Amino acid sequence: MRHRTSVPSRAGAPPPVPTARRSRTHLRVTSVGSVTTALLTDQYELTMVDAALKDGTADRRCVFEVFSRRLPDGRRYGVAAGLGRFLTALTEFRFGDDEIGFLRDRNVIDEGTARWLADYRFTGDVRAYREGEVFFPNSPVLQVEGTFAEAVVLETLALSVFNADSAIAGAAARMVSAADGRPLAEMGSRRTGEWNAVAAARAAYIAGFGATSNLEAGRTWGIPTMGTAAHAFTLLHDSEEAAFRSQLDALGDGTTLLVDTYDIEAAVETAVRLTDGRLGAVRIDSGDLPSVVASVRAQLDRLGATATKITVTNDLDEYTIAALRAAPVDSYGVGTSVVSGSGHPAAGMVFKLVAHQTPSGDEWVPVAKKSADKASTGGRKEAGRRLRNGIATAEVVLTSGRVGPDERPLLVPVVEHGEVDPAFLGVAGVEAARAHHERAKAELPADASRIGRGDPAIPTLVI
Amino acid sequence: MRHRTSVPSRAGAPPPVPTARRSRTHLRVTSVGSVTTALLTDQYELTMVDAALKDGTADRRCVFEVFSRRLPDGRRYGVAAGLGRFLTALTEFRFGDDEIGFLRDRNVIDEGTARWLADYRFTGDVRAYREGEVFFPNSPVLQVEGTFAEAVVLETLALSVFNADSAIAGAAARMVSAADGRPLAEMGSRRTGEWNAVAAARAAYIAGFGATSNLEAGRTWGIPTMGTAAHAFTLLHDSEEAAFRSQLDALGDGTTLLVDTYDIEAAVETAVRLTDGRLGAVRIDSGDLPSVVASVRAQLDRLGATATKITVTNDLDEYTIAALRAAPVDSYGVGTSVVSGSGHPAAGMVFKLVAHQTPSGDEWVPVAKKSADKASTGGRKEAGRRLRNGIATAEVVLTSGRVGPDERPLLVPVVEHGEVDPAFLGVAGVEAARAHHERAKAELPADASRIGRGDPAIPTLVI
Repeated sequence: MRHRTSVPSRAGAPPPVPTARRSRTHLRVTSVGSVTTALLTDQYELTMVDAALKDGTADRRCVFEVFSRRLPDGRRYGVAAGLGRFLTALTEFRFGDDEIGFLRDRNVIDEGTARWLADYRFTGDVRAYREGEVFFPNSPVLQVEGTFAEAVVLETLALSVFNADSAIAGAAARMVSAADGRPLAEMGSRRTGEWNAVAAARAAYIAGFGATSNLEAGRTWGIPTMGTAAHAFTLLHDSEEAAFRSQLDALGDGTTLLVDTYDIEAAVETAVRLTDGRLGAVRIDSGDLPSVVASVRAQLDRLGATATKITVTNDLDEYTIAALRAAPVDSYGVGTSVVSGSGHPAAGMVFKLVAHQTPSGDEWVPVAKKSADKASTGGRKEAGRRLRNGIATAEVVLTSGRVGPDERPLLVPVVEHGEVDPAFLGVAGVEAARAHHERAKAELPADASRIGRGDPAIPTLVI
Repeated sequence: MRHRTSVPSRAGAPPPVPTARRSRTHLRVTSVGSVTTALLTDQYELTMVDAALKDGTADRRCVFEVFSRRLPDGRRYGVAAGLGRFLTALTEFRFGDDEIGFLRDRNVIDEGTARWLADYRFTGDVRAYREGEVFFPNSPVLQVEGTFAEAVVLETLALSVFNADSAIAGAAARMVSAADGRPLAEMGSRRTGEWNAVAAARAAYIAGFGATSNLEAGRTWGIPTMGTAAHAFTLLHDSEEAAFRSQLDALGDGTTLLVDTYDIEAAVETAVRLTDGRLGAVRIDSGDLPSVVASVRAQLDRLGATATKITVTNDLDEYTIAALRAAPVDSYGVGTSVVSGSGHPAAGMVFKLVAHQTPSGDEWVPVAKKSADKASTGGRKEAGRRLRNGIATAEVVLTSGRVGPDERPLLVPVVEHGEVDPAFLGVAGVEAARAHHERAKAELPADASRIGRGDPAIPTLVI
């Protein structure tokens, strides 16, 4: 078996995990059997491996691709996110005694498959759209080449990461457009699963958010963190003024005071008085924001606190953010809608076998499901973004041949012979993704950023 | 400070983590600084602790409650899920050197708060709705009593777990009703974050699903797992017949063959022929299911495979499941819609301070935010479900007094003086939750299970 002979056995030292300073993933590899991503897997992947090992097809070299058949209804582009997390999880994809014991107990695999899993190391190649890249229907955002068995077991892990992270990045990018240059903070941790929250903060940051409330995202991915106080802090104290004094003493006049626990006008008056007008910002978390913000701005100015900023955080999404364009808002905090993909919590990506080698290994056979509503295009793809004067005019997906001279190549190598390129990992990977996203978005036609529903901003040409 | 003197310092041995056999959480506590849930926290919780430690309010005894102001639009009841996961995460909520170093580097906390966090152990009391219990607007599903500082830091962790898990359980319960006794399997791991997937499988199982495709959910929570093969397995082989033969050899005639890769009729014919009519089941993953299922059933019967079952898995939700009631479907596999809460990916729960003691500690002060659209009711609650002839007629939420004789008490102690009751943890906790859910749902009025939109099945009386 190809990768049983080319990698050290499980008895050897675990392979080095590529890391950058302060770039730990939240699930650190300590040793096989401690924390592993190997069972974040649908059972059918292992029953397929089991059957393929028995019938001799397990070693057939295959290409799998991840793509979306369509964008969420009305969206004009997607944002590919999750690559750095997927590659980290790939290095943690190890079957220890505990995992194998469970699979044997449940009779999912036989003894031969158990031995194969114990030695599992991905030894193939992966190409991908850079993290932060925009994508369109049928864009091959991830392409995995390896033996059938070593590649098929990655389906669930790849899709879980890409579907969740891309859903969030796609929604976040629209909010960034709607905010029109004003800063956005992600603060939706309380509205999604506790580890999803960390990934959500990361995806939103890649799509242009400036900060997160989530501390683990700050630690793991180097994202700026923010946050000062909740209503509970005011309610705890014997008066709002006592709460404000306490916060100002601890955090300084530059802090943000939450002014809507009782009466906003009274709170603003107190806040300005306690800081002699030097208060950093006020936060408003309820009410009809356009009118409330306007009256708070007028009050702050009247009281001389002209430099005090206003941040709003009341169940915002891209539509309510856009509706506040004319209001004197200085920044936005967004929760539920960004972490849940603003109505589309999964990006709709699938992981499909598109080609396999013949048994002799000297020819590639393109394959595709033919039935009913889920037909796809077989064969290994190339992909390029066709540009005219720096503006995208088409997504070109090729089933043969190469990307042309007017097309920016979209697939880059990220894993070669099982070795993950560390440039895509950790904090450095996140920063590179954020920068790449800004460049890729800038190439889109101007109307791609409109918030209303529309068709994909450019057509996908499958050639 | 109350709990600095009453618990061992960080230099001592870590406290025992309650576990049941085969009931590990996916994130195991190995030691402080290894895997911790402590930074799954919004920054403002720690800045509040920092300020409260300085001003002397940190030790005020407080009650926080988790509740939803309303159910998702048109839903008739909610399902409280996540308690067992929250309690496990609570035992892992420890600040090690690494976490504290990060918080100091980012200037979130000062040296005094760093020392306080290093000693952090929750020493308070928690009461909760049993996991699997149904809930209504303003049901106090979780009630945390402790010092302000030790309780406020749990907001994000509690809400992340309860909002995500309850969203899934609430959707899953409706699907169970729609399936009307036919078994359901959760197979949505690929459509949600990789660790969310494990929690989703657990929540769906509590709400009455029978199995999951997710292996980690099988290992961690003891849930039955299922799955045989994807389209890739058929596409890998040189013919559909070769793929079927391989799967039958590996898994036996009782397996489920996926019959819609090419032509369903031809696939069914092959499948029956290869098994002499003893095939366990066929799976259909595309097409117009009511008509496809009817014709496959007729074909199977014609070929003598009258015992062969039919399972369907094509983007189902409670509505398409209900629409298949008249079709000869034997079981359902549900993906995207269940893991994303069928349109409502977060349950809308909030974590609010409802009472604190006076500085002297001899009196409770009920508190509540007063402003605009987010007002709530102060004071520690009791809650009971009013029953008449065993059928629920009202959710009674009391701000004073006790649950009456016709009311089933809903809040049960789950943590006392920091000690988690192990009955709610691990595999045993999941099984108890599943059983409790069935009982609680059976108490609802008959029309609570209708799939169409409606008001909450019973009114909430806040008295």
